[in-house]
Amino acid sequence: MSHYHAPVQEMRFVLDEIVDLPQICQLPGFEEATPDLVNAVLDEAAKFTGEVLAPLNRVGDTQGCQLTANGVSTPTGWKEAYAQFCEAGWNGMTSPTEFGGQGLPETLGLAVKEMACSANLAFSLGPLLTAGAVEALLTCASDELKSVYLEKMISGQWSGTMNLTEPQAGSDLALIRSRAEPQVDGTYRIFGQKIFITYGDHDMTDNIVHLVLARLPDAPAGVKGISMFLVPKFLVQADGSLGARNDAYCVSLEHKLGIHASPTCVMAYGDSGGATGYLLGQANRGLEYMFIMMNAARLGVGLQGISLGERAYQQALAYARDRKQGRDALTGEPLVSIDKHPDIRRMLMLMKSRVEACRALAYYTSGLLDRAHAGGHDPDTAKRCLYLAEFMIPIVKGGGTEMGIDVTSLGIQIHGGMGFIEETGAAQHWRDARITTIYEGTTGIQANDLLFRKLMRDQGATAKVVFGEIYATAKALGMSGKPELQAIGQRLGAGLKMWTDATEWLAANAQTGLSGVLTVAVPYLHLAVTVCGGWMMGKAALVAANYLDKGEGDLSFYRAKLASARFYADQVLPQAIAYAETVKASDTAMAGLSSDELF
Amino acid sequence: MSHYHAPVQEMRFVLDEIVDLPQICQLPGFEEATPDLVNAVLDEAAKFTGEVLAPLNRVGDTQGCQLTANGVSTPTGWKEAYAQFCEAGWNGMTSPTEFGGQGLPETLGLAVKEMACSANLAFSLGPLLTAGAVEALLTCASDELKSVYLEKMISGQWSGTMNLTEPQAGSDLALIRSRAEPQVDGTYRIFGQKIFITYGDHDMTDNIVHLVLARLPDAPAGVKGISMFLVPKFLVQADGSLGARNDAYCVSLEHKLGIHASPTCVMAYGDSGGATGYLLGQANRGLEYMFIMMNAARLGVGLQGISLGERAYQQALAYARDRKQGRDALTGEPLVSIDKHPDIRRMLMLMKSRVEACRALAYYTSGLLDRAHAGGHDPDTAKRCLYLAEFMIPIVKGGGTEMGIDVTSLGIQIHGGMGFIEETGAAQHWRDARITTIYEGTTGIQANDLLFRKLMRDQGATAKVVFGEIYATAKALGMSGKPELQAIGQRLGAGLKMWTDATEWLAANAQTGLSGVLTVAVPYLHLAVTVCGGWMMGKAALVAANYLDKGEGDLSFYRAKLASARFYADQVLPQAIAYAETVKASDTAMAGLSSDELF
Repeated sequence: MSHYHAPVQEMRFVLDEIVDLPQICQLPGFEEATPDLVNAVLDEAAKFTGEVLAPLNRVGDTQGCQLTANGVSTPTGWKEAYAQFCEAGWNGMTSPTEFGGQGLPETLGLAVKEMACSANLAFSLGPLLTAGAVEALLTCASDELKSVYLEKMISGQWSGTMNLTEPQAGSDLALIRSRAEPQVDGTYRIFGQKIFITYGDHDMTDNIVHLVLARLPDAPAGVKGISMFLVPKFLVQADGSLGARNDAYCVSLEHKLGIHASPTCVMAYGDSGGATGYLLGQANRGLEYMFIMMNAARLGVGLQGISLGERAYQQALAYARDRKQGRDALTGEPLVSIDKHPDIRRMLMLMKSRVEACRALAYYTSGLLDRAHAGGHDPDTAKRCLYLAEFMIPIVKGGGTEMGIDVTSLGIQIHGGMGFIEETGAAQHWRDARITTIYEGTTGIQANDLLFRKLMRDQGATAKVVFGEIYATAKALGMSGKPELQAIGQRLGAGLKMWTDATEWLAANAQTGLSGVLTVAVPYLHLAVTVCGGWMMGKAALVAANYLDKGEGDLSFYRAKLASARFYADQVLPQAIAYAETVKASDTAMAGLSSDELF
Repeated sequence: MSHYHAPVQEMRFVLDEIVDLPQICQLPGFEEATPDLVNAVLDEAAKFTGEVLAPLNRVGDTQGCQLTANGVSTPTGWKEAYAQFCEAGWNGMTSPTEFGGQGLPETLGLAVKEMACSANLAFSLGPLLTAGAVEALLTCASDELKSVYLEKMISGQWSGTMNLTEPQAGSDLALIRSRAEPQVDGTYRIFGQKIFITYGDHDMTDNIVHLVLARLPDAPAGVKGISMFLVPKFLVQADGSLGARNDAYCVSLEHKLGIHASPTCVMAYGDSGGATGYLLGQANRGLEYMFIMMNAARLGVGLQGISLGERAYQQALAYARDRKQGRDALTGEPLVSIDKHPDIRRMLMLMKSRVEACRALAYYTSGLLDRAHAGGHDPDTAKRCLYLAEFMIPIVKGGGTEMGIDVTSLGIQIHGGMGFIEETGAAQHWRDARITTIYEGTTGIQANDLLFRKLMRDQGATAKVVFGEIYATAKALGMSGKPELQAIGQRLGAGLKMWTDATEWLAANAQTGLSGVLTVAVPYLHLAVTVCGGWMMGKAALVAANYLDKGEGDLSFYRAKLASARFYADQVLPQAIAYAETVKASDTAMAGLSSDELF
């Protein structure tokens, strides 16, 4: 079994130096978040995730969940860990104080989420889904529904789910067929089958609050005829106690490649007369509400890639320091730990620097969201922060999850043959990571979102702000007078040039060559995350060099940070050139040929 | 369950047009390989692998093997399939006729191996190991041992294994501790534990012939003190019948990420007094013999990556043609099969073109080996072919297997959420592929082999031959007068420039900057396979264009081939620029920092 120690020093560095969390904590509404509290939260979360959640990760993988006559049972220890999780208040950390939450900044919550996902992704999905449902209720539920459900969901006493997918309706939600029949009492009867429902049933809470997309009888076809309903597992009585079992059942569990302990349910609604549901917000606006939540959800899934990358890195490093094999090629020392071998060192550095780059980008994006949503800004600043965050989200989601697969694969490689043995645990991270590029919108969908919504909706204005900031970082590196920073600045500048070139090419071709633009959307997303990661590492390098100059703080940490930034610049940023070339090459090779002619 | 149809047309194209198999078939010793026979072999193998082996692939994955009191039992249907495999003569296809084999060219055998690996990798590993053991016996066994063992191993009646790894000795075989005590009768008693022994025990053959690396009492330390022993599961009596059970047992099976049906055994030798073994060849030369086999074995593992890529491609294509989701972005057609979506098309083309490029390179390399080993050449030509093949082998092994992981991952991605469900079968290919970059020498070891043995042993002379041939292909494309070929030629020329630049940089720095060179060996290998793949696709494009000009043959096949070559040039070859940059960036970022300072 592998251990997990939350990288608290690194997280603090990003929160303090890249995101400027202290400044966020001074925004109205975040007064509770004093520096002492922030430190206590990070330290306690590190302890809880390392000691309680991490040891259950492999138990969950090997046992998985079981569907019994009484519903889904979770693995040994799961219920107890969840109770501790709620007891310690982790579930409601960032929820409004009005409903019992602690109202802390989302960015601080993101660091805690990273720890939970690193420690035990399958476990963390439960609270993640609940948080999404809470956000939906906050967005569009009536005051009455809010008062019945929110406090218990925020405390974790009840959990939440999202019910979108149906067998014929995956990425394309226009095809949803589930239906809702209005009743005289103002409720609805819900009928339909939903698949891939995460934590659709389990034994950790008394009640489960399902949010279900379905169609009203008179709804228009397509995505504009989808409404959102709240469908509890047990109906809630006037006094708040649980009443009758609702007609909403898990009828089957999927056998999955990874996240075995996260029950992925086929849910049947209304097989015995109809499940009682309550309309959330207005009719036919379900998808719109869903999209409001999607920012946080996609950022959260991007974070999952980063979390698994971090966990895999820690495990690979521990193994490489322990495993002795082969002679040191430089000193000739006969039997050395494999972290001395240059190729292993390269892989470890690649894991470390790519995780660091994506982590900084994710936290930075979350900081923008906090700034956009907190009061105290003029509307222009708030909008600018929101647009920047929304621009970054598909980059973090697509880029962070693809990185997670690559990095967990390197973790296996460093273990050699032992990496292929399940007991080692390295393979689990890779298996678990594989879903992250698929759920909450595939990488292809993120890439289209980046291009056709985020880039084009303001004619590239937000992109230009990002380009300007990256340019400023590259310039600061170049003007530093330090060769190691200048080298990073040069690579970053070259990467930025590639990104702007490719963006101009796309803008020029979006009208006349739509097929080509759509074809290279994913390489364009890879280009964006490569350069944005370099930008974050460039910022980090500037900070680290400054502390080293002043001789302040943990100098060995800053030296390692400089090395990591330089490594990223040298070994990752050059890929920007290749991605830009492939973007500009477009779909020429396939032009005019149909699928039947090509394959 | 997914189907597998061997890509016979594509294989014939590569064999005829890239490898010139007809010319190989005319070399002395291959007289049997008439065009009719070659066609019959390919067609029959396609039938057998598609109808018998492929349907067992998922059965094997779900059942795995079991260790019982009577040894290891294989999944349902395995024994019967193996009996059919041997009955049809597939096991001895390329073995010498002297011992009952059919003496066909290895390159034809490679095409059949590809089919078997695509259909069922876990199954194919048994015959692969037997073939390796056969080769070892042909290389170094006494005539007596040959006469007792070879015929039965070539027919498949007995199988073979290779016993190298011990818990403390993986990539570093110098650490082997198993020992052999000489007996008065000329045999040896073998003692020791071996791990990761593929098909170390099973129920498909009467006997298993273990080849075991161990040390004699007076052996020097390190790799020069390792000898190779033949240790049968059952001793063979003078009349050829099976005698006593030898002291060689499978004591445990590994639980692995993939290839579940291939039993990976912990083998205990001599726990009850010593296993009887026979010295193969001369004492202390065991590792040398092992290396002779390693060329074929590594080529075979490179082929596994290609095979799984092909299988994943076929499955993803079938799914994409069947699954309807979303609107056609170009025509507006409301509900189309997803192969119409540009990003899915890009992924399918990436899978197809990368598999085709690596396949052509693997077959080309095998053709060189056949030419090197067949008689009828002057020694200089034979040596030149051997050196070229040996240069290519780490490129095919490292590049083909890394490609296999990437391509099988794309296969999952195309399936969306269904790709994560084990019943779909897409995930199995990815899990199975994950071992291929590890066994028979990790990608890091292949990269070092390429740089420090294959590139430097003749001061780059072989590399220069390769560069010259690639240059000639790029030039022919450029001189063709056809824009689509010229575009491919230009990309290939640019890729070659990157490769030669990086090679010159490495040559200039190998002495003074060994650490840096070792650090970027793997990126250098990726650079090499990217360009070599482009070279193969360039050759294919020239052939296809020629047939299209003449209007001869299956024109739709040649049009698709041109598109695939162009796609590879546009979307894969540009990565050569990035790899070359990373090679030249070397280990500057880490220079002077120890593992403790970096991580």
